[in-house]
Amino acid sequence: MSEPRFDITSLQNDRVKDLVRLRTRRDRDRAELTLIEEPLVIERALDAGYPLQTLFLCPPRIAPEHKELVDRLLDVVGLECVRVNEPVMDKVSYREQAEGLLVVAPQVTRDLASLDLGQAPLLVVLEGVEKPGNLGAVLRVADGAGADGVIVCGGGTDLFNPNVLRASRGAFFSVPTVAASLDTVLEFLKSHNIASVATSPVADHRWDEIGLTGPTAIVLGTEHEGLSGDWLAQADLTVGIPMLGRGDSLNVSTSAAVLLYEAVRQRSSRKADPT
Amino acid sequence: MSEPRFDITSLQNDRVKDLVRLRTRRDRDRAELTLIEEPLVIERALDAGYPLQTLFLCPPRIAPEHKELVDRLLDVVGLECVRVNEPVMDKVSYREQAEGLLVVAPQVTRDLASLDLGQAPLLVVLEGVEKPGNLGAVLRVADGAGADGVIVCGGGTDLFNPNVLRASRGAFFSVPTVAASLDTVLEFLKSHNIASVATSPVADHRWDEIGLTGPTAIVLGTEHEGLSGDWLAQADLTVGIPMLGRGDSLNVSTSAAVLLYEAVRQRSSRKADPT
Repeated sequence: MSEPRFDITSLQNDRVKDLVRLRTRRDRDRAELTLIEEPLVIERALDAGYPLQTLFLCPPRIAPEHKELVDRLLDVVGLECVRVNEPVMDKVSYREQAEGLLVVAPQVTRDLASLDLGQAPLLVVLEGVEKPGNLGAVLRVADGAGADGVIVCGGGTDLFNPNVLRASRGAFFSVPTVAASLDTVLEFLKSHNIASVATSPVADHRWDEIGLTGPTAIVLGTEHEGLSGDWLAQADLTVGIPMLGRGDSLNVSTSAAVLLYEAVRQRSSRKADPT
Repeated sequence: MSEPRFDITSLQNDRVKDLVRLRTRRDRDRAELTLIEEPLVIERALDAGYPLQTLFLCPPRIAPEHKELVDRLLDVVGLECVRVNEPVMDKVSYREQAEGLLVVAPQVTRDLASLDLGQAPLLVVLEGVEKPGNLGAVLRVADGAGADGVIVCGGGTDLFNPNVLRASRGAFFSVPTVAASLDTVLEFLKSHNIASVATSPVADHRWDEIGLTGPTAIVLGTEHEGLSGDWLAQADLTVGIPMLGRGDSLNVSTSAAVLLYEAVRQRSSRKADPT
Protein backbone atom coordinates (compact mmCIF):
# COMPACT_ATOMS: atom_id res chain seq x y z
CA MET A 1 0.00 0.00 0.00
CA SER A 2 1.21 3.47 -0.86
CA GLU A 3 1.49 6.22 1.70
CA PRO A 4 -1.47 8.57 1.85
CA ARG A 5 -0.72 11.70 -0.21
CA PHE A 6 -2.08 14.08 2.39
CA ASP A 7 -1.91 14.29 6.17
CA ILE A 8 -5.07 16.37 6.32
CA THR A 9 -8.00 16.26 3.93
CA SER A 10 -10.84 17.25 6.25
CA LEU A 11 -11.91 20.84 6.76
CA GLN A 12 -13.13 19.74 10.19
CA ASN A 13 -9.66 18.73 11.32
CA ASP A 14 -8.65 20.42 14.58
CA ARG A 15 -5.41 21.71 13.14
CA VAL A 16 -7.33 23.36 10.32
CA LYS A 17 -9.54 25.07 12.87
CA ASP A 18 -6.50 26.16 14.86
CA LEU A 19 -4.93 27.67 11.75
CA VAL A 20 -8.05 29.60 10.83
CA ARG A 21 -8.15 30.98 14.37
CA LEU A 22 -4.64 32.35 13.94
CA ARG A 23 -6.07 34.92 11.57
CA THR A 24 -7.31 36.89 14.56
CA ARG A 25 -4.85 38.82 16.62
CA ARG A 26 -6.13 37.59 19.95
CA ASP A 27 -5.50 33.98 19.02
CA ARG A 28 -2.12 34.73 17.44
CA ASP A 29 -0.97 36.58 20.54
CA ARG A 30 -2.33 33.95 22.90
CA ALA A 31 -0.51 31.20 20.99
CA GLU A 32 2.50 33.49 20.42
CA LEU A 33 2.47 32.54 16.76
CA THR A 34 2.29 34.21 13.39
CA LEU A 35 1.58 33.10 9.82
CA ILE A 36 3.81 33.52 6.79
CA GLU A 37 2.32 32.73 3.41
CA GLU A 38 3.97 34.42 0.42
CA PRO A 39 6.86 32.35 -0.98
CA LEU A 40 9.13 35.43 -1.13
CA VAL A 41 8.43 36.26 2.50
CA ILE A 42 8.97 32.67 3.61
CA GLU A 43 12.28 32.74 1.76
CA ARG A 44 13.37 35.91 3.56
CA ALA A 45 12.46 34.32 6.90
CA LEU A 46 14.59 31.29 6.00
CA ASP A 47 17.48 33.51 4.84
CA ALA A 48 17.35 35.36 8.15
CA GLY A 49 17.38 32.13 10.16
CA TYR A 50 14.02 32.98 11.71
CA PRO A 51 12.61 29.98 13.60
CA LEU A 52 9.79 28.21 11.78
CA GLN A 53 7.45 25.78 13.48
CA THR A 54 5.13 24.10 10.98
CA LEU A 55 4.92 24.07 7.20
CA PHE A 56 1.50 23.40 5.71
CA LEU A 57 2.23 22.23 2.20
CA CYS A 58 -0.15 21.54 -0.65
CA PRO A 59 2.05 19.85 -3.27
CA PRO A 60 -0.44 20.14 -6.18
CA ARG A 61 -0.33 23.92 -5.76
CA ILE A 62 3.43 24.36 -5.79
CA ALA A 63 4.56 26.25 -8.88
CA PRO A 64 7.81 25.08 -10.53
CA GLU A 65 9.60 28.26 -9.44
CA HIS A 66 8.90 27.48 -5.79
CA LYS A 67 10.13 23.87 -5.76
CA GLU A 68 13.59 24.92 -4.63
CA LEU A 69 12.08 26.85 -1.72
CA VAL A 70 10.07 23.77 -0.73
CA ASP A 71 13.26 21.69 -0.79
CA ARG A 72 14.99 24.24 1.44
CA LEU A 73 12.05 24.15 3.85
CA LEU A 74 12.01 20.36 4.00
CA ASP A 75 15.68 20.48 4.99
CA VAL A 76 15.05 22.72 8.01
CA VAL A 77 15.74 20.68 11.14
CA GLY A 78 12.75 20.67 13.48
CA LEU A 79 10.28 22.13 10.98
CA GLU A 80 7.21 19.91 10.96
CA CYS A 81 5.67 19.41 7.51
CA VAL A 82 1.94 18.76 7.16
CA ARG A 83 0.68 17.90 3.69
CA VAL A 84 -2.82 19.13 2.98
CA ASN A 85 -5.10 18.85 -0.03
CA GLU A 86 -6.38 21.78 -2.07
CA PRO A 87 -9.69 22.37 -0.27
CA VAL A 88 -7.83 22.50 3.06
CA MET A 89 -5.19 24.85 1.64
CA ASP A 90 -7.89 27.18 0.34
CA LYS A 91 -9.57 27.12 3.73
CA VAL A 92 -6.48 27.99 5.77
CA SER A 93 -4.97 30.46 3.34
CA TYR A 94 -5.67 34.13 3.93
CA ARG A 95 -4.78 34.94 0.35
CA GLU A 96 -7.27 34.69 -2.46
CA GLN A 97 -5.05 32.44 -4.51
CA ALA A 98 -3.37 29.99 -2.18
CA GLU A 99 0.07 29.15 -3.51
CA GLY A 100 0.48 25.92 -1.59
CA LEU A 101 2.63 27.12 1.29
CA LEU A 102 1.72 28.37 4.74
CA VAL A 103 4.21 28.55 7.56
CA VAL A 104 3.40 28.88 11.24
CA ALA A 105 6.20 30.60 13.13
CA PRO A 106 6.70 31.74 16.71
CA GLN A 107 6.47 35.41 17.64
CA VAL A 108 10.08 36.30 18.42
CA THR A 109 9.88 39.57 20.32
CA ARG A 110 12.94 41.76 20.60
CA ASP A 111 13.83 44.56 22.95
CA LEU A 112 15.84 47.72 22.45
CA ALA A 113 18.91 46.26 24.12
CA SER A 114 19.07 43.59 21.43
CA LEU A 115 19.52 46.14 18.62
CA ASP A 116 22.88 45.85 16.96
CA LEU A 117 23.98 49.48 16.67
CA GLY A 118 27.00 50.50 14.65
CA GLN A 119 28.90 53.77 14.94
CA ALA A 120 26.18 55.91 13.43
CA PRO A 121 22.94 53.99 13.77
CA LEU A 122 19.97 54.96 11.65
CA LEU A 123 16.67 54.09 13.29
CA VAL A 124 13.01 54.70 12.54
CA VAL A 125 10.53 55.31 15.34
CA LEU A 126 6.85 55.02 14.48
CA GLU A 127 4.29 56.39 16.87
CA GLY A 128 0.76 55.04 16.81
CA VAL A 129 0.98 53.26 13.46
CA GLU A 130 -2.18 51.20 13.19
CA LYS A 131 -2.43 49.77 9.71
CA PRO A 132 -0.29 46.65 9.32
CA GLY A 133 0.27 47.56 5.66
CA ASN A 134 1.81 50.89 6.67
CA LEU A 135 4.18 49.29 9.17
CA GLY A 136 5.17 46.70 6.56
CA ALA A 137 5.79 49.38 3.93
CA VAL A 138 8.01 51.32 6.37
CA LEU A 139 9.97 48.14 7.13
CA ARG A 140 10.52 47.62 3.42
CA VAL A 141 11.95 51.09 2.87
CA ALA A 142 13.95 50.87 6.13
CA ASP A 143 15.54 47.70 4.75
CA GLY A 144 16.27 49.44 1.44
CA ALA A 145 17.98 52.33 3.21
CA GLY A 146 19.96 50.00 5.45
CA ALA A 147 18.35 51.18 8.68
CA ASP A 148 19.37 49.41 11.87
CA GLY A 149 15.91 48.95 13.28
CA VAL A 150 12.32 50.10 13.45
CA ILE A 151 10.87 50.95 16.84
CA VAL A 152 7.11 50.94 17.20
CA CYS A 153 5.89 53.05 20.05
CA GLY A 154 2.52 53.97 21.42
CA GLY A 155 1.17 50.49 21.96
CA GLY A 156 -1.55 48.67 20.18
CA THR A 157 0.41 47.83 17.06
CA ASP A 158 -0.05 44.26 15.92
CA LEU A 159 3.60 43.60 15.03
CA PHE A 160 3.02 39.98 14.07
CA ASN A 161 0.02 40.62 11.85
CA PRO A 162 0.59 38.55 8.69
CA ASN A 163 -0.06 41.72 6.68
CA VAL A 164 2.94 43.39 8.30
CA LEU A 165 5.13 40.54 7.07
CA ARG A 166 3.49 40.57 3.64
CA ALA A 167 3.65 44.33 3.09
CA SER A 168 7.26 44.35 4.25
CA ARG A 169 8.07 41.83 1.50
CA GLY A 170 10.02 39.99 4.17
CA ALA A 171 11.93 43.03 5.47
CA PHE A 172 10.36 42.19 8.83
CA PHE A 173 12.98 39.44 9.06
CA SER A 174 15.98 41.58 8.11
CA VAL A 175 15.14 44.80 9.97
CA PRO A 176 14.89 44.35 13.75
CA THR A 177 11.45 45.51 14.86
CA VAL A 178 10.89 46.41 18.48
CA ALA A 179 7.84 47.66 20.38
CA ALA A 180 8.53 49.97 23.31
CA SER A 181 6.90 52.78 25.26
CA LEU A 182 7.70 56.44 24.61
CA ASP A 183 9.64 56.83 27.85
CA THR A 184 11.69 53.71 27.20
CA VAL A 185 12.50 54.84 23.67
CA LEU A 186 13.47 58.36 24.75
CA GLU A 187 15.74 57.00 27.47
CA PHE A 188 17.30 54.53 25.06
CA LEU A 189 18.00 57.22 22.45
CA LYS A 190 19.50 59.59 25.00
CA SER A 191 21.70 56.95 26.59
CA HIS A 192 23.07 56.03 23.15
CA ASN A 193 23.47 59.64 22.02
CA ILE A 194 21.07 59.10 19.16
CA ALA A 195 19.49 62.33 17.94
CA SER A 196 15.72 62.15 17.57
CA VAL A 197 14.45 63.90 14.44
CA ALA A 198 10.69 64.29 14.61
CA THR A 199 8.63 65.05 11.52
CA SER A 200 6.03 67.74 11.81
CA PRO A 201 4.07 69.97 9.45
CA VAL A 202 5.15 72.92 11.62
CA ALA A 203 8.82 72.09 11.92
CA ASP A 204 11.89 74.18 12.64
CA HIS A 205 13.87 72.80 9.71
CA ARG A 206 13.41 71.47 6.22
CA TRP A 207 14.25 67.78 5.97
CA ASP A 208 17.38 68.49 3.94
CA GLU A 209 18.71 71.25 6.18
CA ILE A 210 19.83 69.06 9.02
CA GLY A 211 22.68 66.63 9.35
CA LEU A 212 21.67 62.99 9.31
CA THR A 213 25.14 61.47 9.25
CA GLY A 214 25.43 60.99 13.01
CA PRO A 215 23.43 58.55 15.15
CA THR A 216 19.86 59.37 14.15
CA ALA A 217 16.33 58.22 14.87
CA ILE A 218 13.71 59.47 12.45
CA VAL A 219 10.41 59.76 14.31
CA LEU A 220 7.16 59.59 12.35
CA GLY A 221 3.57 59.88 13.51
CA THR A 222 0.30 58.78 12.03
CA GLU A 223 -1.04 60.41 8.90
CA HIS A 224 -4.11 61.79 10.58
CA GLU A 225 -2.80 62.91 13.92
CA GLY A 226 0.92 63.42 13.35
CA LEU A 227 3.20 62.98 16.33
CA SER A 228 1.97 63.49 19.87
CA GLY A 229 2.90 66.60 21.78
CA ASP A 230 5.15 64.44 23.95
CA TRP A 231 7.32 63.46 21.02
CA LEU A 232 7.36 66.92 19.50
CA ALA A 233 8.38 68.46 22.83
CA GLN A 234 11.09 65.95 23.58
CA ALA A 235 12.63 65.37 20.17
CA ASP A 236 16.02 66.97 19.53
CA LEU A 237 14.93 68.46 16.21
CA THR A 238 11.75 68.82 14.20
CA VAL A 239 11.83 68.58 10.41
CA GLY A 240 9.21 69.08 7.76
CA ILE A 241 8.83 67.71 4.28
CA PRO A 242 7.49 70.51 2.08
CA MET A 243 4.04 69.88 0.66
CA LEU A 244 4.01 71.78 -2.62
CA GLY A 245 0.60 70.67 -3.92
CA ARG A 246 -2.90 70.55 -2.48
CA GLY A 247 -2.46 67.68 -0.05
CA ASP A 248 -1.32 68.24 3.51
CA SER A 249 0.64 65.07 4.22
CA LEU A 250 2.40 62.09 2.72
CA ASN A 251 1.80 58.48 3.57
CA VAL A 252 4.03 57.34 6.45
CA SER A 253 6.09 55.03 4.22
CA THR A 254 6.76 57.74 1.63
CA SER A 255 7.71 60.18 4.42
CA ALA A 256 10.08 57.53 5.75
CA ALA A 257 11.50 57.06 2.23
CA VAL A 258 12.22 60.79 1.82
CA LEU A 259 14.00 61.06 5.17
CA LEU A 260 15.84 57.74 5.08
CA TYR A 261 17.23 58.30 1.61
CA GLU A 262 18.26 61.83 2.55
CA ALA A 263 20.30 60.14 5.29
CA VAL A 264 21.70 57.66 2.74
CA ARG A 265 22.61 60.56 0.45
CA GLN A 266 24.39 62.45 3.21
CA ARG A 267 26.15 59.35 4.48
CA SER A 268 27.43 58.34 1.09
CA SER A 269 31.01 59.31 0.42
CA ARG A 270 30.14 59.96 -3.19
CA LYS A 271 28.97 63.52 -3.60
CA ALA A 272 25.94 64.69 -5.50
CA ASP A 273 26.97 66.40 -8.70
CA PRO A 274 24.01 68.30 -10.07
CA THR A 275 24.73 69.23 -13.67
CA MET B 1 -48.30 66.07 4.39
CA SER B 2 -44.56 66.28 4.82
CA GLU B 3 -42.12 65.58 2.00
CA PRO B 4 -40.75 62.05 1.91
CA ARG B 5 -37.36 61.98 3.64
CA PHE B 6 -35.75 59.80 1.00
CA ASP B 7 -35.87 59.65 -2.80
CA ILE B 8 -34.82 55.99 -2.81
CA THR B 9 -35.56 53.38 -0.16
CA SER B 10 -35.67 50.22 -2.25
CA LEU B 11 -32.61 48.10 -2.94
CA GLN B 12 -34.34 47.05 -6.15
CA ASN B 13 -34.41 50.59 -7.53
CA ASP B 14 -32.83 50.81 -10.98
CA ARG B 15 -30.51 53.61 -9.94
CA VAL B 16 -29.22 51.48 -7.08
CA LYS B 17 -28.50 48.69 -9.53
CA ASP B 18 -26.75 51.12 -11.88
CA LEU B 19 -24.57 52.36 -9.06
CA VAL B 20 -23.56 48.88 -7.98
CA ARG B 21 -22.62 48.13 -11.59
CA LEU B 22 -20.23 51.10 -11.59
CA ARG B 23 -18.00 49.12 -9.29
CA THR B 24 -16.78 47.15 -12.28
CA ARG B 25 -14.41 48.76 -14.69
CA ARG B 26 -16.29 47.69 -17.80
CA ASP B 27 -19.44 49.44 -16.67
CA ARG B 28 -17.57 52.53 -15.48
CA ASP B 29 -15.79 52.87 -18.80
CA ARG B 30 -18.93 52.20 -20.81
CA ALA B 31 -20.80 54.90 -18.88
CA GLU B 32 -17.69 57.11 -18.77
CA LEU B 33 -18.25 57.62 -15.06
CA THR B 34 -16.39 57.16 -11.83
CA LEU B 35 -17.29 57.07 -8.13
CA ILE B 36 -15.96 59.26 -5.34
CA GLU B 37 -16.82 58.33 -1.80
CA GLU B 38 -14.44 59.59 0.88
CA PRO B 39 -15.41 63.06 2.17
CA LEU B 40 -11.81 64.31 1.87
CA VAL B 41 -11.57 63.12 -1.74
CA ILE B 42 -14.94 64.65 -2.63
CA GLU B 43 -13.71 67.89 -1.10
CA ARG B 44 -10.56 67.85 -3.22
CA ALA B 45 -12.66 67.25 -6.33
CA LEU B 46 -14.81 70.24 -5.41
CA ASP B 47 -11.75 72.40 -4.70
CA ALA B 48 -10.35 71.51 -8.12
CA GLY B 49 -13.60 72.36 -9.88
CA TYR B 50 -13.94 68.80 -11.16
CA PRO B 51 -17.40 68.25 -12.69
CA LEU B 52 -19.73 66.21 -10.48
CA GLN B 53 -22.89 64.59 -11.78
CA THR B 54 -24.93 63.07 -8.96
CA LEU B 55 -24.67 63.13 -5.19
CA PHE B 56 -26.15 60.18 -3.34
CA LEU B 57 -26.71 61.47 0.17
CA CYS B 58 -27.78 59.60 3.27
CA PRO B 59 -28.50 62.38 5.80
CA PRO B 60 -28.66 60.12 8.89
CA ARG B 61 -25.08 59.07 8.19
CA ILE B 62 -23.56 62.52 7.83
CA ALA B 63 -21.14 63.23 10.66
CA PRO B 64 -21.13 66.78 12.08
CA GLU B 65 -17.68 67.48 10.60
CA HIS B 66 -18.99 66.78 7.10
CA LYS B 67 -22.05 69.02 7.21
CA GLU B 68 -20.13 71.92 5.70
CA LEU B 69 -19.04 69.73 2.80
CA VAL B 70 -22.66 68.68 2.23
CA ASP B 71 -23.68 72.33 2.15
CA ARG B 72 -20.98 73.06 -0.42
CA LEU B 73 -22.15 70.12 -2.53
CA LEU B 74 -25.79 71.22 -2.39
CA ASP B 75 -24.68 74.60 -3.73
CA VAL B 76 -23.04 73.12 -6.83
CA VAL B 77 -25.06 74.17 -9.86
CA GLY B 78 -26.21 71.19 -11.91
CA LEU B 79 -25.30 68.57 -9.30
CA GLU B 80 -28.30 66.29 -8.83
CA CYS B 81 -28.89 65.23 -5.23
CA VAL B 82 -30.57 61.90 -4.48
CA ARG B 83 -31.44 61.19 -0.85
CA VAL B 84 -31.21 57.52 0.11
CA ASN B 85 -31.85 55.65 3.32
CA GLU B 86 -29.24 53.69 5.24
CA PRO B 87 -29.82 50.24 3.73
CA VAL B 88 -29.49 51.75 0.24
CA MET B 89 -26.33 53.64 1.22
CA ASP B 90 -24.78 50.47 2.59
CA LYS B 91 -25.66 48.65 -0.60
CA VAL B 92 -24.13 51.20 -2.99
CA SER B 93 -21.10 52.06 -0.88
CA TYR B 94 -17.89 50.24 -1.66
CA ARG B 95 -16.51 51.10 1.76
CA GLU B 96 -17.21 49.00 4.80
CA GLN B 97 -18.49 51.93 6.77
CA ALA B 98 -20.55 54.11 4.47
CA GLU B 99 -20.21 57.72 5.54
CA GLY B 100 -23.35 58.95 3.83
CA LEU B 101 -21.85 60.45 0.68
CA LEU B 102 -21.26 58.96 -2.75
CA VAL B 103 -20.64 61.10 -5.81
CA VAL B 104 -20.92 59.97 -9.42
CA ALA B 105 -18.63 62.00 -11.67
CA PRO B 106 -17.75 61.87 -15.35
CA GLN B 107 -14.42 60.49 -16.52
CA VAL B 108 -12.59 63.60 -17.70
CA THR B 109 -9.72 62.30 -19.80
CA ARG B 110 -6.75 64.52 -20.55
CA ASP B 111 -4.05 64.34 -23.18
CA LEU B 112 -0.40 65.34 -23.08
CA ALA B 113 -1.04 68.59 -24.94
CA SER B 114 -3.28 69.74 -22.08
CA LEU B 115 -0.45 69.59 -19.53
CA ASP B 116 0.45 72.99 -18.16
CA LEU B 117 4.25 72.94 -18.23
CA GLY B 118 6.32 75.64 -16.60
CA GLN B 119 9.95 76.42 -17.29
CA ALA B 120 11.33 73.30 -15.69
CA PRO B 121 8.51 70.79 -15.58
CA LEU B 122 8.75 67.81 -13.27
CA LEU B 123 6.78 64.82 -14.52
CA VAL B 124 6.35 61.21 -13.47
CA VAL B 125 5.93 58.48 -16.07
CA LEU B 126 4.65 55.13 -14.84
CA GLU B 127 4.95 52.11 -17.07
CA GLY B 128 2.64 49.16 -16.59
CA VAL B 129 1.34 50.14 -13.15
CA GLU B 130 -1.53 47.79 -12.44
CA LYS B 131 -2.64 48.22 -8.85
CA PRO B 132 -4.94 51.23 -8.44
CA GLY B 133 -3.54 51.73 -4.93
CA ASN B 134 -0.04 52.14 -6.32
CA LEU B 135 -1.09 54.70 -8.91
CA GLY B 136 -3.01 56.60 -6.24
CA ALA B 137 -0.02 56.55 -3.88
CA VAL B 138 2.24 57.90 -6.64
CA LEU B 139 -0.26 60.68 -7.35
CA ARG B 140 -0.25 61.63 -3.68
CA VAL B 141 3.53 61.96 -3.52
CA ALA B 142 3.59 63.71 -6.93
CA ASP B 143 1.19 66.27 -5.48
CA GLY B 144 3.38 66.66 -2.40
CA ALA B 145 6.46 67.30 -4.51
CA GLY B 146 4.62 69.74 -6.77
CA ALA B 147 4.97 67.62 -9.91
CA ASP B 148 3.27 68.92 -13.04
CA GLY B 149 1.68 65.67 -14.06
CA VAL B 150 1.69 61.89 -13.99
CA ILE B 151 1.74 60.02 -17.28
CA VAL B 152 0.59 56.43 -17.28
CA CYS B 153 1.94 54.42 -20.13
CA GLY B 154 1.70 50.83 -21.24
CA GLY B 155 -2.06 50.58 -21.40
CA GLY B 156 -4.42 48.67 -19.24
CA THR B 157 -4.35 51.01 -16.28
CA ASP B 158 -7.77 51.74 -14.85
CA LEU B 159 -7.23 55.46 -14.27
CA PHE B 160 -10.75 56.07 -12.99
CA ASN B 161 -10.83 53.18 -10.55
CA PRO B 162 -12.31 54.56 -7.32
CA ASN B 163 -9.30 53.12 -5.48
CA VAL B 164 -6.98 55.37 -7.49
CA LEU B 165 -8.92 58.38 -6.27
CA ARG B 166 -9.06 57.04 -2.73
CA ALA B 167 -5.38 56.10 -2.46
CA SER B 168 -4.41 59.46 -3.96
CA ARG B 169 -6.29 61.19 -1.12
CA GLY B 170 -7.72 63.41 -3.82
CA ALA B 171 -4.38 64.21 -5.51
CA PHE B 172 -5.98 62.74 -8.64
CA PHE B 173 -7.83 66.05 -8.91
CA SER B 174 -4.82 68.30 -8.42
CA VAL B 175 -2.18 66.41 -10.41
CA PRO B 176 -3.05 66.06 -14.12
CA THR B 177 -3.07 62.37 -14.98
CA VAL B 178 -2.71 61.30 -18.60
CA ALA B 179 -2.62 57.89 -20.28
CA ALA B 180 -0.51 57.64 -23.43
CA SER B 181 1.50 55.10 -25.40
CA LEU B 182 5.26 54.80 -25.09
CA ASP B 183 5.90 56.30 -28.52
CA THR B 184 3.62 59.24 -27.85
CA VAL B 185 5.27 59.92 -24.49
CA LEU B 186 8.80 59.71 -25.91
CA GLU B 187 7.92 62.08 -28.73
CA PHE B 188 6.26 64.48 -26.29
CA LEU B 189 9.27 64.51 -23.96
CA LYS B 190 11.72 65.04 -26.82
CA SER B 191 9.71 67.82 -28.40
CA HIS B 192 9.58 69.64 -25.05
CA ASN B 193 13.26 69.01 -24.23
CA ILE B 194 12.29 67.08 -21.12
CA ALA B 195 15.01 64.68 -19.99
CA SER B 196 13.75 61.18 -19.25
CA VAL B 197 15.34 59.66 -16.16
CA ALA B 198 14.59 55.96 -15.98
CA THR B 199 14.98 53.96 -12.79
CA SER B 200 16.75 50.65 -13.02
CA PRO B 201 18.51 48.27 -10.64
CA VAL B 202 21.43 48.26 -13.13
CA ALA B 203 21.67 51.99 -13.69
CA ASP B 204 24.52 54.21 -14.84
CA HIS B 205 24.08 56.71 -12.01
CA ARG B 206 23.01 56.92 -8.41
CA TRP B 207 19.77 58.85 -7.98
CA ASP B 208 21.57 61.74 -6.31
CA GLU B 209 24.37 62.01 -8.85
CA ILE B 210 22.36 63.56 -11.62
CA GLY B 211 20.87 66.99 -12.05
CA LEU B 212 17.12 67.15 -11.67
CA THR B 213 16.70 70.91 -11.85
CA GLY B 214 15.96 71.06 -15.57
CA PRO B 215 12.86 69.77 -17.33
CA THR B 216 12.67 66.19 -16.05
CA ALA B 217 10.46 63.15 -16.36
CA ILE B 218 11.09 60.44 -13.79
CA VAL B 219 10.22 57.08 -15.35
CA LEU B 220 9.27 54.18 -13.08
CA GLY B 221 8.37 50.60 -13.93
CA THR B 222 6.50 47.91 -12.06
CA GLU B 223 7.98 46.39 -8.94
CA HIS B 224 8.21 42.93 -10.40
CA GLU B 225 9.36 43.60 -13.92
CA GLY B 226 10.98 47.01 -13.75
CA LEU B 227 10.94 49.11 -16.90
CA SER B 228 10.72 47.54 -20.33
CA GLY B 229 13.78 47.35 -22.55
CA ASP B 230 12.19 50.00 -24.75
CA TRP B 231 12.18 52.56 -21.98
CA LEU B 232 15.62 51.66 -20.70
CA ALA B 233 17.06 51.93 -24.22
CA GLN B 234 15.40 55.22 -25.05
CA ALA B 235 15.66 57.10 -21.77
CA ASP B 236 18.23 59.88 -21.57
CA LEU B 237 19.64 58.61 -18.28
CA THR B 238 19.23 55.62 -16.00
CA VAL B 239 19.40 56.01 -12.23
CA GLY B 240 19.34 53.55 -9.38
CA ILE B 241 18.26 53.84 -5.78
CA PRO B 242 20.73 51.87 -3.66
CA MET B 243 19.24 48.89 -1.88
CA LEU B 244 21.33 48.51 1.26
CA GLY B 245 19.40 45.70 2.95
CA ARG B 246 18.12 42.31 1.88
CA GLY B 247 15.29 43.42 -0.40
CA ASP B 248 15.83 44.09 -4.07
CA SER B 249 13.33 46.86 -4.74
CA LEU B 250 11.16 49.54 -3.24
CA ASN B 251 7.47 50.02 -3.77
CA VAL B 252 6.78 52.28 -6.76
CA SER B 253 5.40 55.10 -4.59
CA THR B 254 8.42 55.08 -2.26
CA SER B 255 10.76 55.06 -5.30
CA ALA B 256 8.83 58.02 -6.66
CA ALA B 257 9.13 59.75 -3.28
CA VAL B 258 12.92 59.35 -3.18
CA LEU B 259 13.38 60.73 -6.70
CA LEU B 260 10.78 63.49 -6.56
CA TYR B 261 12.06 64.88 -3.27
CA GLU B 262 15.64 64.72 -4.55
CA ALA B 263 14.37 66.98 -7.34
CA VAL B 264 12.67 69.23 -4.77
CA ARG B 265 15.91 69.37 -2.79
CA GLN B 266 17.97 70.31 -5.82
CA ARG B 267 15.43 72.83 -7.03
CA SER B 268 15.19 74.60 -3.72
CA SER B 269 17.25 77.76 -3.46
CA ARG B 270 17.97 76.94 0.15
CA LYS B 271 21.03 74.75 0.40
CA ALA B 272 21.40 71.65 2.48
CA ASP B 273 23.70 72.29 5.41
CA PRO B 274 24.74 68.96 6.89
CA THR B 275 26.22 69.54 10.30
